[in-house]
Amino acid sequence: MHTQQILASHPQVQGKTNDALLRCIDECHDCAQTCTACADACLAESSVGELRQCIRLNLDCADLCLVGASLGSRRTGTNQAVLKRTLEICGEACRLCAEECEKHASKHEHCRICADACRKCERACREAVSSIGAVH
Amino acid sequence: MHTQQILASHPQVQGKTNDALLRCIDECHDCAQTCTACADACLAESSVGELRQCIRLNLDCADLCLVGASLGSRRTGTNQAVLKRTLEICGEACRLCAEECEKHASKHEHCRICADACRKCERACREAVSSIGAVH
Amino acid sequence: MHTQQILASHPQVQGKTNDALLRCIDECHDCAQTCTACADACLAESSVGELRQCIRLNLDCADLCLVGASLGSRRTGTNQAVLKRTLEICGEACRLCAEECEKHASKHEHCRICADACRKCERACREAVSSIGAVH
Amino acid sequence: MHTQQILASHPQVQGKTNDALLRCIDECHDCAQTCTACADACLAESSVGELRQCIRLNLDCADLCLVGASLGSRRTGTNQAVLKRTLEICGEACRLCAEECEKHASKHEHCRICADACRKCERACREAVSSIGAVH
Repeated sequence: MHTQQILASHPQVQGKTNDALLRCIDECHDCAQTCTACADACLAESSVGELRQCIRLNLDCADLCLVGASLGSRRTGTNQAVLKRTLEICGEACRLCAEECEKHASKHEHCRICADACRKCERACREAVSSIGAVH
Repeated sequence: MHTQQILASHPQVQGKTNDALLRCIDECHDCAQTCTACADACLAESSVGELRQCIRLNLDCADLCLVGASLGSRRTGTNQAVLKRTLEICGEACRLCAEECEKHASKHEHCRICADACRKCERACREAVSSIGAVH
Repeated sequence: MHTQQILASHPQVQGKTNDALLRCIDECHDCAQTCTACADACLAESSVGELRQCIRLNLDCADLCLVGASLGSRRTGTNQAVLKRTLEICGEACRLCAEECEKHASKHEHCRICADACRKCERACREAVSSIGAVH
Repeated sequence: MHTQQILASHPQVQGKTNDALLRCIDECHDCAQTCTACADACLAESSVGELRQCIRLNLDCADLCLVGASLGSRRTGTNQAVLKRTLEICGEACRLCAEECEKHASKHEHCRICADACRKCERACREAVSSIGAVH
């Protein structure tokens, strides 16, 4: 990913990047990809009937991660309160998706991998939220 | 839009649709389209330098509206707390975008139109959030 | 939808809107919503095992419709060849999704509704593509 | 990214991954992030008036890369012709965006970085398209 490089070159950033936010953007992209693929892999399982809730949470999580990454990549002007709350809800979607995937992790390798990506992204969102600081 | 029809036909819904949520989905699509177009129209203005914050809020709002519409369209399993908080933050993004657009509405017709779409979506999000009820 | 209004107010458009493209943007939003909801409704059916291909095509179609609507909403500068080909492939995704949904339309009302939305969007994409004209 | 791992675990893939497609998914995520950030950095430049076409191509490219990554991540059922054409148009959007960014690369570091990400993604799309093989 070129995340660090490209954000460091923004005229309002000038090298002073927020590293927690950079990591969060990368984890959001990873988690969106993993959740999209896990939903699709669950759908192909013979036991798909037991994986409905997992697919639902995967799809919602993928959607929120992509929007988290997009909002997190903008530095022109400001929309700090919205960014902060978006990453909070993104981290919450990751946590819920991880919890569901963990239930199926012993049976389905894709759920084990997806839970791992979700836990990493959950943590990265939490750290990014803290790094943004108090917003009015 | 086929929103009412398609959601009424979901096996877990069986005709008992949440009308506030249906309206919210439609307004989210309208607002996403309008914000995408307003960002693009602002970019074409000779005074683009004064419209940077407007473009930023337009783009963030469009992203959040699309994810609000997607999450709001799912009924399999449940992810109620995430949906509710997503629509809350979506409504907040609409409110902030409307406020900024209103500053430019007398000069730029697209900002006047966009502010109108954002206000409608803000209201629809608020009503949808209330309709979802208390979530644990 | 505010589509006609907002695009007519773009500084490079000045009222001279491409009506076929306007309709296509609206149909893309409708079809994206309908396909997202149909995928989710299929997932909730007891016969989900027979609806895998339908869900796959629904999800792909929804993704392409949203990108078609976004690209179709921009008028600043030009990216005509990419827009034209995006709407071509979007129309093709609609056609394939409609064909699959039609197979299940007698059993599942959501598939019947989704096929209808896809056919309308397929037609709107084709007309928009024609309206864009020859591109180098 | 967990791309290789998660796709290898899909029931229909069973370890036989298409490596060109895996790389393409990762490059699409990288390019979407970079284009989103480049559009935003261009918007913050005092010379934004000269960067309108760049911003337009950045935004279109980001949208197409995300849809390319999503479609490329699904293996259930089949939608090969649509995937192939989506990656073709995605690669074309990357090429055009790279060409525009290269014009501004000596003045703006973010355009230099973005051109690099777009060229990598263009190449990855081309190789993924070849790897998918002839489709009817």
